[in-house]
Amino acid sequence: MLNLTEIISVPSRLFIGGTVPENYYHDTYVKNIKPVYAVALPKTQEEIIKLVDFAIEKDLHILARGAGTGVAGAQVPLEGNELIIDVHLMNRIVELDEETLTLTVEPGTLVGEIHHYVESKGYFYPPDPASKHSTIGGNVATNAGGLRAVKYGTTRDYIREMTVVLPSSETMTLGSKNIKSSSGYDMKDLFIGSEGTLGITTEIKLKLIPLPKASVSLLLAFDTVQQATDATLAILTSGADPSGVELFERQALHYAEQNLGYPLKSQVGQAYLLMTLDGNNQTELVGRVELIEQIAQETALESHVLTKEEALKNWALRDNILLGLTVFTEFELLDEVVPINKFAELIESTKQMQEKHGLNVLNFGHAGDGNVHTLLMKDDLSEEEWTRKRAALLKDLYQKVADLGGLPSAEHGIGIVKKEYMESMTDEVNLKYMRALKKVFDPDNRLNPGKIF
Amino acid sequence: MLNLTEIISVPSRLFIGGTVPENYYHDTYVKNIKPVYAVALPKTQEEIIKLVDFAIEKDLHILARGAGTGVAGAQVPLEGNELIIDVHLMNRIVELDEETLTLTVEPGTLVGEIHHYVESKGYFYPPDPASKHSTIGGNVATNAGGLRAVKYGTTRDYIREMTVVLPSSETMTLGSKNIKSSSGYDMKDLFIGSEGTLGITTEIKLKLIPLPKASVSLLLAFDTVQQATDATLAILTSGADPSGVELFERQALHYAEQNLGYPLKSQVGQAYLLMTLDGNNQTELVGRVELIEQIAQETALESHVLTKEEALKNWALRDNILLGLTVFTEFELLDEVVPINKFAELIESTKQMQEKHGLNVLNFGHAGDGNVHTLLMKDDLSEEEWTRKRAALLKDLYQKVADLGGLPSAEHGIGIVKKEYMESMTDEVNLKYMRALKKVFDPDNRLNPGKIF
Ligand SMILES: Cc1cc2nc3c(=O)[nH]c(=O)nc-3n(C[C@H](O)[C@H](O)[C@H](O)COP(=O)(O)OP(=O)(O)OC[C@H]3O[C@@H](n4cnc5c(N)ncnc54)[C@H](O)[C@@H]3O)c2cc1C
Ligand SMILES: Cc1cc2nc3c(=O)[nH]c(=O)nc-3n(C[C@H](O)[C@H](O)[C@H](O)COP(=O)(O)OP(=O)(O)OC[C@H]3O[C@@H](n4cnc5c(N)ncnc54)[C@H](O)[C@@H]3O)c2cc1C
Repeated sequence: MLNLTEIISVPSRLFIGGTVPENYYHDTYVKNIKPVYAVALPKTQEEIIKLVDFAIEKDLHILARGAGTGVAGAQVPLEGNELIIDVHLMNRIVELDEETLTLTVEPGTLVGEIHHYVESKGYFYPPDPASKHSTIGGNVATNAGGLRAVKYGTTRDYIREMTVVLPSSETMTLGSKNIKSSSGYDMKDLFIGSEGTLGITTEIKLKLIPLPKASVSLLLAFDTVQQATDATLAILTSGADPSGVELFERQALHYAEQNLGYPLKSQVGQAYLLMTLDGNNQTELVGRVELIEQIAQETALESHVLTKEEALKNWALRDNILLGLTVFTEFELLDEVVPINKFAELIESTKQMQEKHGLNVLNFGHAGDGNVHTLLMKDDLSEEEWTRKRAALLKDLYQKVADLGGLPSAEHGIGIVKKEYMESMTDEVNLKYMRALKKVFDPDNRLNPGKIF
Repeated sequence: MLNLTEIISVPSRLFIGGTVPENYYHDTYVKNIKPVYAVALPKTQEEIIKLVDFAIEKDLHILARGAGTGVAGAQVPLEGNELIIDVHLMNRIVELDEETLTLTVEPGTLVGEIHHYVESKGYFYPPDPASKHSTIGGNVATNAGGLRAVKYGTTRDYIREMTVVLPSSETMTLGSKNIKSSSGYDMKDLFIGSEGTLGITTEIKLKLIPLPKASVSLLLAFDTVQQATDATLAILTSGADPSGVELFERQALHYAEQNLGYPLKSQVGQAYLLMTLDGNNQTELVGRVELIEQIAQETALESHVLTKEEALKNWALRDNILLGLTVFTEFELLDEVVPINKFAELIESTKQMQEKHGLNVLNFGHAGDGNVHTLLMKDDLSEEEWTRKRAALLKDLYQKVADLGGLPSAEHGIGIVKKEYMESMTDEVNLKYMRALKKVFDPDNRLNPGKIF
């Protein structure tokens, strides 16, 4: 049998037992993480294959890990017998193929770095999670969405090809550089969004598009969340074609303002819409901006077309909502999604639940695709109250989401924190076949077991 | 045990044994079709469930069928013990939901009818196979592409939700009206493009988009296919953003001209590009048309911006290429796809194979997404020569496609006619897991067995 130190001979890339650094035991969503068998940081697919072989021989569980920014606890070890395969050192940009507009990257490449790189070459990788420091492998595993999904879709829509190492240590390449395919079953989309439970992604070919030549951002302020969501529906059907429409409540933004130390461009009202339009040239955008201003005239308190500098500063505030909160208070972050015409009703109902359960609720999210990030705020509640009230509210909330035809997660994944709700909101027959699919690729339930369902 | 006549009590919707009409035994690609057990034409999902239960009890194979336009033999019975479930009478448009922009249809609805209906309401369903008389259920089963895939993607990209009856007679709903999801495995995309081997689709919710307010078509004529494909690459990266770029050789179009009885707008050169640009208004299009005209100036013999009427007539010729051929000659139609930058090399190589094997080869196809429909022409070859030369040429051709990183089918499916090539061009590990997935949903290999792999 191979020894771990023979597979990874560089000491800085291998931590066994008690030498595993602290940061692998920190997570906002899962407390009391048990010590793991080892953490290995491979640099090649070959090393990953050997690590998987080792885990099979030793009968260890395996956990793939990127940047560890996941917010569903999917990257957290549960049992204590895990070999964590942390791929964040596999972060090379391998090839930009300008003829097919594909970028080949290793899984540990940060999404922010991908943006930076391709934009410097005149190309665009649209998926844009607020967590620029998450890895592309993690983004694929959670089918990350983000701030431009309304116009451009999610991570899924930009994966042309990916190579995975299966729990059997076989490797398999899914998809190809071809734009279309009707050649056998689409297994690629099964692996995308599977939260590291089916295979370990070792290389990804991304689809790029030409960089839009012009863009402009707008900020709209409203008296109520209801008015903001009504305006969202109107904007979506107007032809203005925003990349995304972000909604946030004043109070949710408040922490980001404190954290970054400057105010949002608008200081009136209780709810805001922030959006970007992009296109081929400035002239084309003028007409589309007008469409939005017309809608704003009816119900918005203020509407601002932002200068480049203002756009940067106001988007930074939006990106900082979660980080800002983390600095100042304890909270639980949700990621529910409902059909777009139910968005207002969902947000409205969270406000009723706030009253009913005596727990502060804030909302922000991707209004343009029906995805709300509801925040349950601990504030000064005792641990006991927080646990009890939160559980009661969550039960009501996910029931409401189900009644509206929604889902527990739009872009963060189920992991461990939403597993219970996922199971209760999903038809038994779907769960049965998802479990059967897991078994096809992982008959020994070795890779990230206990997650999703 | 239920009797078939109890399940379907209307005589015009049930044909048993010798009463099965002739048309179920006709197919261009599979000769000598064996008589089947029965053909049933259900009108509801409940009838389908009972038919599947009946097939299980009687140990019959099951074959779902739409309009029978498939060009890979996937809808053809192979063994003689099939119960054919022909869904073409389930053709109701169930609901247009203008708030979520989804259209609910039964699987037998014709794609041409869907276009007609949604466009009359100001909406757009982009996937546009040349076979307007194929069913949406068949389109989903083959992941149909068509004439607008470059800008808008394929059928896969417009399926929000679908309900299937499994070979176990269980029903399962895949996807939802929600725009985003990271809630468990994506089984929907596994079923899309599975050629009726995993389940029978009984209802589909399509994603619609607003109808583009302006559009214009252009026709470019070139001396050589190589010049036309070079121009295609230039057009794709120019920002002109065509919905699709169709390429055809003069000789391939010749039959459509004879069949429809009028000429193409351009009569010079050997190869043509036909394309449409659409957008929000005419002004926006002007700039994009100019981009194409600039490219045309360099190598095209002629370039025409078509009037509305000319556009209709020239697109009808394009749509009629296959039908025209069918009237005048015997041929084999391929559907290979290569990475977009290999398109010219592939077409070039088919011309060399024409010389080598003494078999006429024509090409047309969706140049904008690397998808060639190569046509092998029987002309005056004897049956024996046709069979022999064709087999030899196909071997060379698929080898070339594989060498270029391509796939055997872009949009028609594998069915029975490309199965051999699919198997030789696909990694063993991928085939192994595709077969295992089939087993999960169809352990008795009852639903459309013997297709794809
Ligand atoms: C401040 C903040 C803002 C965020 N904003 C957004 C947002 O706007 N949109 C959005 O969609 N998400 C957002 N997220 C969520 C988060 O960034 C995503 O979940 C991210 O995709 C996880 O990437 P990671 O590299 O950190 O993966 P990790 O957290 O390390 O792992 C997450 C999951 O991916 C799996 N995984 C990681 N790498 C691989 C691999 N190579 N092969 C197989 N499985 C792998 C893990 O096993 C685990 O299941 C945000 C998170 C934070 C903290
Ligand atoms: C002249 C012509 C032009 C064409 N042009 C194009 C083109 O441009 N682009 C393109 O993509 N294709 C094109 N095609 C191919 C063809 O139209 C497609 O394959 C079509 O999607 C098949 O639909 P159908 O209803 O005829 O299905 P059928 O031929 O009846 O069946 C095809 C497959 O779908 C399965 N199926 C049908 N209904 C269901 C259901 N309800 N549930 C489960 N499985 C089902 C069948 O089992 C079979 O495997 C063309 C064909 C012709 C004849």
